[in-house]
Amino acid sequence: MIIVFKKNATEGQIKTLEGELRAIGLGIHESIGEHSRLIGLIGDVSRVDIDQLQANDFIEEIKRISEPYKKANRKFHPEDTVIEAAGVQIGGGSFTVMAGPCSVESEAQIVQVAKDVKASGAAFLRGGAFKPRTSPYSFQGLRGEGLHLLQTARSATGLPIVTEIMNTEDLPLFEDVDIIQVGARNMQNFELLKALGKLGKPVLLKRGLSATIEEWLMSAEYIMAGGNEKVILCERGIRTFETSMRNTLDISAVPMVKAKSHLPVVVDPSHAAGIAWMVEPLAMAAIAAGADGLMIEVHNDPKHALSDGAQSLTPARFDELMTKIRPTVEFFGKKIG
Amino acid sequence: MIIVFKKNATEGQIKTLEGELRAIGLGIHESIGEHSRLIGLIGDVSRVDIDQLQANDFIEEIKRISEPYKKANRKFHPEDTVIEAAGVQIGGGSFTVMAGPCSVESEAQIVQVAKDVKASGAAFLRGGAFKPRTSPYSFQGLRGEGLHLLQTARSATGLPIVTEIMNTEDLPLFEDVDIIQVGARNMQNFELLKALGKLGKPVLLKRGLSATIEEWLMSAEYIMAGGNEKVILCERGIRTFETSMRNTLDISAVPMVKAKSHLPVVVDPSHAAGIAWMVEPLAMAAIAAGADGLMIEVHNDPKHALSDGAQSLTPARFDELMTKIRPTVEFFGKKIG
Amino acid sequence: MIIVFKKNATEGQIKTLEGELRAIGLGIHESIGEHSRLIGLIGDVSRVDIDQLQANDFIEEIKRISEPYKKANRKFHPEDTVIEAAGVQIGGGSFTVMAGPCSVESEAQIVQVAKDVKASGAAFLRGGAFKPRTSPYSFQGLRGEGLHLLQTARSATGLPIVTEIMNTEDLPLFEDVDIIQVGARNMQNFELLKALGKLGKPVLLKRGLSATIEEWLMSAEYIMAGGNEKVILCERGIRTFETSMRNTLDISAVPMVKAKSHLPVVVDPSHAAGIAWMVEPLAMAAIAAGADGLMIEVHNDPKHALSDGAQSLTPARFDELMTKIRPTVEFFGKKIG
Amino acid sequence: MIIVFKKNATEGQIKTLEGELRAIGLGIHESIGEHSRLIGLIGDVSRVDIDQLQANDFIEEIKRISEPYKKANRKFHPEDTVIEAAGVQIGGGSFTVMAGPCSVESEAQIVQVAKDVKASGAAFLRGGAFKPRTSPYSFQGLRGEGLHLLQTARSATGLPIVTEIMNTEDLPLFEDVDIIQVGARNMQNFELLKALGKLGKPVLLKRGLSATIEEWLMSAEYIMAGGNEKVILCERGIRTFETSMRNTLDISAVPMVKAKSHLPVVVDPSHAAGIAWMVEPLAMAAIAAGADGLMIEVHNDPKHALSDGAQSLTPARFDELMTKIRPTVEFFGKKIG
Repeated sequence: MIIVFKKNATEGQIKTLEGELRAIGLGIHESIGEHSRLIGLIGDVSRVDIDQLQANDFIEEIKRISEPYKKANRKFHPEDTVIEAAGVQIGGGSFTVMAGPCSVESEAQIVQVAKDVKASGAAFLRGGAFKPRTSPYSFQGLRGEGLHLLQTARSATGLPIVTEIMNTEDLPLFEDVDIIQVGARNMQNFELLKALGKLGKPVLLKRGLSATIEEWLMSAEYIMAGGNEKVILCERGIRTFETSMRNTLDISAVPMVKAKSHLPVVVDPSHAAGIAWMVEPLAMAAIAAGADGLMIEVHNDPKHALSDGAQSLTPARFDELMTKIRPTVEFFGKKIG
Repeated sequence: MIIVFKKNATEGQIKTLEGELRAIGLGIHESIGEHSRLIGLIGDVSRVDIDQLQANDFIEEIKRISEPYKKANRKFHPEDTVIEAAGVQIGGGSFTVMAGPCSVESEAQIVQVAKDVKASGAAFLRGGAFKPRTSPYSFQGLRGEGLHLLQTARSATGLPIVTEIMNTEDLPLFEDVDIIQVGARNMQNFELLKALGKLGKPVLLKRGLSATIEEWLMSAEYIMAGGNEKVILCERGIRTFETSMRNTLDISAVPMVKAKSHLPVVVDPSHAAGIAWMVEPLAMAAIAAGADGLMIEVHNDPKHALSDGAQSLTPARFDELMTKIRPTVEFFGKKIG
Repeated sequence: MIIVFKKNATEGQIKTLEGELRAIGLGIHESIGEHSRLIGLIGDVSRVDIDQLQANDFIEEIKRISEPYKKANRKFHPEDTVIEAAGVQIGGGSFTVMAGPCSVESEAQIVQVAKDVKASGAAFLRGGAFKPRTSPYSFQGLRGEGLHLLQTARSATGLPIVTEIMNTEDLPLFEDVDIIQVGARNMQNFELLKALGKLGKPVLLKRGLSATIEEWLMSAEYIMAGGNEKVILCERGIRTFETSMRNTLDISAVPMVKAKSHLPVVVDPSHAAGIAWMVEPLAMAAIAAGADGLMIEVHNDPKHALSDGAQSLTPARFDELMTKIRPTVEFFGKKIG
Repeated sequence: MIIVFKKNATEGQIKTLEGELRAIGLGIHESIGEHSRLIGLIGDVSRVDIDQLQANDFIEEIKRISEPYKKANRKFHPEDTVIEAAGVQIGGGSFTVMAGPCSVESEAQIVQVAKDVKASGAAFLRGGAFKPRTSPYSFQGLRGEGLHLLQTARSATGLPIVTEIMNTEDLPLFEDVDIIQVGARNMQNFELLKALGKLGKPVLLKRGLSATIEEWLMSAEYIMAGGNEKVILCERGIRTFETSMRNTLDISAVPMVKAKSHLPVVVDPSHAAGIAWMVEPLAMAAIAAGADGLMIEVHNDPKHALSDGAQSLTPARFDELMTKIRPTVEFFGKKIG
């Protein structure tokens, strides 16, 4: 960490601050330039609160050198993390496809979609029971009943399930879920992250609409700091000025996160684009950029879907897509898991 | 609502859809142009799920004409809403200043700041007990104990309190809080919004970092749809590409929200800029643009604040600011409440 | 085009406007809803100036149905455009790699890089003679002398050249350039676009940092409206809130532009990321998403490059990349041109 | 400037680099931390090209301490710059209102608007002769003829004129213009900036749609580096995700630019919002935030304006606004100039 002083900082102010920093065990390197004076801090700067420091009005700027996340940081954990969920390996050369409807709507629907996506080669069934909807007047999900139907579909097909949690109070209902998903709007619901940190269950953490990669990794760190290191990251598009798609898929986030962290990264092309026909090219781009998996919306009757119909594929269209995904994954050196 | 068809839409597809729409009570106006064919829907389109419609691949585009929010909409409620909290009126010509530290740290601290900001003219004491922090390693707030200390400060000064909730499970602890704040990161924590909709207590709803004004009003609608119409909106800066400030204060949101909604709007210049010296010019701009109040961070010892020191004013600096706020509010035709 | 009236619009105002619109040859469809009244315009609405209409204060909103670009629009030109430059085909199944240094620095440098990238399989030599630099104190390019050196490199290798123009006054110098590039910062330099519209030479049009896809296609339309239909689009990353990369590659723009327009689209992964190690994964993603080519920065001595060293590949690294690009392009069904 | 090395940087690499930096006259301060090793550079780092440095793959990160602009920097020029144009002072306590139509359309129009805005108290007549329009099919301005009509209006009223240039080739036509405007889309048209740097005439430099404050000041630096220090900055809204306004007025840019630079800053609320009724609250906010002036669109017949009618005020509405601007400017301690 580097602290740059203002021109009018007094010797006394600087010396007092240096004393306080030494008192918490840090080494200090001074550097006096023509136009600026600064110090570099040596040691474990995680104990330094930048907020506090910045309130010293003789400080011009504080620059952090090292990343603020540790458990999620590849520097301290060079090997890829491989997460096992219901016997399926995620990351480390496996490529995992999670597919299913935006919302669970009925037993007939979810069981049928589960059979279809399994037949096409999906490794997980996704489906929303608790639905975060922008409008209070939109369908809010079947909630507990929806979780129950997902389990029915799992029994019928053997496909493990991934579904979204929205509130810590619902945690007991998620005991029999294989991967718990945290949605984009809850990426910084820190109480929820802390609660998930106490579980032994894999968590799929979607990136927030306007979250930087560093903030996203800090949210993973919240879960990991609690003791649960089974975090799968999911890039699903960010909010930009462009309006022709629902969101802008940040494809660069895939290699960047894999460079900065050891956690697996999957891509959700359905939410990224919000348009069914664009799922295929974005899925191909995700594989090519090094993603560890895909999360794709599939609905048996998109026109009558209770949510996100516009971006859902029919089972037939998904099957066709899987015939392209399979060789592409192999071409890029991974194995469909 | 207008539905534009693709060129290759068949007569049969269009007629089937029109039949379905008529069946839910809507009128249909057809319009056949040279390059496009479209229909206008007449009646209560809130029953139409755009997601479902968009899954029809013969539809090119759907354009909404009316806003998706009702209870928050000025069209259906032309008069300004005035909210009373602990005997103080917010909105409708009153100008309300809420001030206090980012975090409650100790009894001595919060009681002292409460006395100071009251003496300077603040109408509410703000202070965080539950703190949403980007890093799990940062101070997380005194939680329940912090709420207790806020009540102590209220007893000592008579100042009503406003403080942030992060989780529905903590709701019982907030029974004796005057205004419950929903932070930017929880603006779309829909379960929390629904729970707050069942209370009779005023809610201060901060705008999310990347929330459009429409999404912000939809979150207000969530609370109001539950029966609680006491919603105060708070603009606190949005995330943009500009990095010289913490956030970009969207000053235009003040007149825009006041045009679209009848709810009062306050501005938080402390979080918007993240820099203490910028609080004054942004506070002045907020008053000039028509805001109904300000939320300002004040700390007795910013250099040793456990959070947000860089943007906090000292009580002396806040007092000086209030001597400018008071005549400015009057100049622009409101009254300090 | 649809015009929605305000609630308080009078019969007289609406009728007068309808008369004016009929007078310019448009048909009118009226639609009167419960909460809104609107008209749809039928015929060639390109004669309608939305700006003018919006000044009528009894109009609530105007919604365009058809795209404002014609010559660039795939609707009116369903076949892919194939552009020939110096005997090389761009688009329509060909995949074109353009490579070379950010700036032309010396004859030795540019001739050597030209030989290297040709040996590795590039079809065009790129290199900047006129350089748009953020700082007036940075190297501004060799200008006319740089163009001359590019021609020398072309003579030495046979590689056609693509280089950036910044000002209409320099046009005479570009007569012997094979493809003229318009940089991101000049995407809406309309005088320059108009001048290029009068040439018969291919133009590579980079997307502006904050240009929507529609604005980008409108800039292509400027060139095409002048008579020059040889426009190659180049996605090079957009500006967002994310700061860990120089720009955010908008990979979705590739399939979206190819759906909306018939023009070829190449991707510049060097500028998109600004980091040499990220060029490979982004290049792979671009091929997978359907791009028609790549523009890649290659420098014989990146550490001593006068600009953009951080994102340049060495010739050896580029050669290695080409051994991956070649089979990938074939895997996705295109041919290296 | 601080250079942080990667963990695997060798002693040899670091020593070689230090030698090269010392050779260009810089001092070096080494700092070796637990997790990082870095050096601070002392002396005139404007000779260091960050691009070049970053190409050294043993460098982790380079952090600049001082701003890259000098002539525009308040640190080296603490006093406010006051610019005189046609005898009117801009900056330094004066408040300047520039008003007029988006486009010059006819002699009758521009002379009438000039008379009207002068009567209401404007100090400059604005009006576009060369118009940057997104569509090639929109009205492109009267060009040379428009400049001539502006001069006619100046003769008729005595009001000095400010108008936009789009291309260096048109410079000779601008000899008799009082302030030359550079539009948002040309903020980084560096050839144009360099040409304007050679004039003795004031330049009004609008901020680009996605330009950071630093980039904006670097564009001012381009003009000033050429010898022309008469630069007036104009904030006119930036591009964000919010779509209910045309742009998002970055009100914080006013105090931030005034802190970082000594140049005067005016605000254009007409372009910022794109909506006539929002001009007033944004104008008030701009005055309150410390702006040195306003640029406002006024048209005698907005409904029939050839561009930007939706955001133009009628002369009557502008006159009413001026009756509010005048006391507000005085309230905030400036004088209408």
